Amino acid sequence: MALVVMKFGGSSVSDADKMKFVAGKIIAKKNDGNKIVTVVSAPGDTTDDLLEMSGKISLDPPEREMDMLLATGEMVSISLLAMAVNAQGEKAISLTGPQAGITSDLYHTKAKIKNINPKKIKSLLAKNNIVIVAGFQALNAKGDFSTLGRGGSDLTAVALSAALNADLCEIYSDVEGVFTTDPRVVKDARKLDFISYDEMLEMAGSGAQVLQARSVEVAKKFGVEIHSRCTFSDKDGTIITSEEKIGGKKVEELLISGVTFDKNQVKFTIIDIPDMPGIAAKIFGRLAKIGVNVDMIIQSAAVNKKNDISFTTTKQDMKKTQIELDKLAIELKAESVICDDQVAKVSIVGIGMRSNAGVAGRMFELLHKKGINIEMISTSEIKISCIVDIIDMEKAVNELHKGFGLSKQKEQI
Amino acid sequence: MALVVMKFGGSSVSDADKMKFVAGKIIAKKNDGNKIVTVVSAPGDTTDDLLEMSGKISLDPPEREMDMLLATGEMVSISLLAMAVNAQGEKAISLTGPQAGITSDLYHTKAKIKNINPKKIKSLLAKNNIVIVAGFQALNAKGDFSTLGRGGSDLTAVALSAALNADLCEIYSDVEGVFTTDPRVVKDARKLDFISYDEMLEMAGSGAQVLQARSVEVAKKFGVEIHSRCTFSDKDGTIITSEEKIGGKKVEELLISGVTFDKNQVKFTIIDIPDMPGIAAKIFGRLAKIGVNVDMIIQSAAVNKKNDISFTTTKQDMKKTQIELDKLAIELKAESVICDDQVAKVSIVGIGMRSNAGVAGRMFELLHKKGINIEMISTSEIKISCIVDIIDMEKAVNELHKGFGLSKQKEQI
Repeated sequence: MALVVMKFGGSSVSDADKMKFVAGKIIAKKNDGNKIVTVVSAPGDTTDDLLEMSGKISLDPPEREMDMLLATGEMVSISLLAMAVNAQGEKAISLTGPQAGITSDLYHTKAKIKNINPKKIKSLLAKNNIVIVAGFQALNAKGDFSTLGRGGSDLTAVALSAALNADLCEIYSDVEGVFTTDPRVVKDARKLDFISYDEMLEMAGSGAQVLQARSVEVAKKFGVEIHSRCTFSDKDGTIITSEEKIGGKKVEELLISGVTFDKNQVKFTIIDIPDMPGIAAKIFGRLAKIGVNVDMIIQSAAVNKKNDISFTTTKQDMKKTQIELDKLAIELKAESVICDDQVAKVSIVGIGMRSNAGVAGRMFELLHKKGINIEMISTSEIKISCIVDIIDMEKAVNELHKGFGLSKQKEQI
Repeated sequence: MALVVMKFGGSSVSDADKMKFVAGKIIAKKNDGNKIVTVVSAPGDTTDDLLEMSGKISLDPPEREMDMLLATGEMVSISLLAMAVNAQGEKAISLTGPQAGITSDLYHTKAKIKNINPKKIKSLLAKNNIVIVAGFQALNAKGDFSTLGRGGSDLTAVALSAALNADLCEIYSDVEGVFTTDPRVVKDARKLDFISYDEMLEMAGSGAQVLQARSVEVAKKFGVEIHSRCTFSDKDGTIITSEEKIGGKKVEELLISGVTFDKNQVKFTIIDIPDMPGIAAKIFGRLAKIGVNVDMIIQSAAVNKKNDISFTTTKQDMKKTQIELDKLAIELKAESVICDDQVAKVSIVGIGMRSNAGVAGRMFELLHKKGINIEMISTSEIKISCIVDIIDMEKAVNELHKGFGLSKQKEQI
């Protein structure tokens, strides 16, 4: 008898009919001879609705109270889903994060799980219950609700799988799995059967939104194999696991696994900063102090003892970055500050590039052939990202997808 | 420095503006030099919305899951209200029922409070916090949420007042206090300055919906003086306290304190039941078994060894009562069963009738003079109720209100 953790996202439980469908799916899995722990997110747009309500009351609410408020969304899901399972004739018990034995540090709205005591879940499973756990939430040492940040239900599912030593961790959403790229942008994008933790992490960090990045880190750390699949389909999705386990299972050896993109990018350039030591440290130290997250950075070679520094950040941080840079430009006697929000980041990800030289060159060549100008480049061991003009983004993604052989083949095995 | 418990009903916190208003009211009370514990209900129609959601999923949901679901309503209120107080510059901390130390028996949806451990509240008050507690909910011995039944937030407020030995328990709603009768029915209904626990209990039990009946019982038991008043007014409301405390405070001695009415009544009559011992026990035993709440009962004197038995119940119980009585009529060889849902109960309540004979006679006379037929009568020490035709109800209430001298006088002191 296997122990399966099944996690359902908010879009899978957004109304009564979907709840009933999910309940049927859980029961079917139990009837296959499994013990079931289900993790659920808040229904549909509930979390956003709660945030909107709090926004009408306070622009800077205490985070402890925010977590008290947000915790209600998952409590609605778990209780309704437990009702739906019971209505179909199986025993189900809902548990809040605290009841499920999930404890966190003292941070609010982005707490880290400290420990999971699976005693209560195990005892309920032993009594033949389907156990339905609220994702996204935990109990801190003060006895308060904490929440784990956006996508935190994925983390709950993975961490519970580790704590329970589950045989399988299935993460259900409204997509079929992990794709080579976004099917809305590239028509012949295809679903991957397998992807390694590291690739998944790079993809999550560069625009793909299938799984929360931290949940993948935890899965890697504890060796939890994740099956990312679609709630409303019986087809296999994508297995996220270690490179070793994937090993020979891959039907074909691909140089890269996916192409990602991110339109939420702004490029800043500070022009003609007099060259002196510690300039970069000063600029980025000041930006860090006001909470600006900087992504890619380029410093041009000094010409006439003057430097240009370019970097990217998100559109959310654009305004405060602009204000700070205008001050800095005066202090540093720089010529000017240019802000460009008409850019996008296009990345290729793949463990194949570790053992294959020339992947970057091929990427640049593919873009060049299509007349796409590369404004910035950054690389990691298994990812290469380029900043391009936003109007070239879709063309770039399609070209890279085709050029690296990711396009759909007839009859995938 | 006084300790004040302030309870706000759902209509007082139904949107962001009202939340802010209530927050201001709480802060003003604190600034008067008081320590404040606030109890809140779920916002507006939240509880009904949650019930509707569950109704779409299951017609017979497990009560444990129902309580998990319903508990979210008050968690939304307390967190948002805490945010509103903080936004206005005062420290506030929200607590769920369980966090506030409120424990209950193992019943769900209508649990009884077993104990309150006020340690956490006291320690938060000592640190100068406004403490905002979720009404209606508690923790049971299994570690689950329980709820206290409709109006349970009143009970939370009264029980907390007792446990904290509060100086004042203010229950805020959208009405100004306890009225001599419903102002929607009688134009010159007037607010009472004082009412005794016993009168309040009889009024709550006979149609008036200002306070939950159980909360009044608990207030009586522990001597908690309640001030029922309006959220959106600074005028004094009604003090609910012991007869002794009211004593000389009353400006005038009234024979009765109020007239109540209840349209949610159905009258059943079983005609010509052969007279034999234990008939009534059999009928009402069977009805109790299927959960029918019977209110007034009349058994006619046996004529020709045959009896008629009439009783009233609520419209919710009408259908199952009808089915059971049809079976019983056959078993008991009764002639027939008549059901009349066009009736209403009109009651007068007052401790004055204890020491004044003839109150009942005066009531019947007032109704008779207006040509109103009395179908059934029941009396308690401080209440007399009559069943009348539903079309006569408003006329009866107005007549009794005027006839017993309750109508508004110019310039109430």
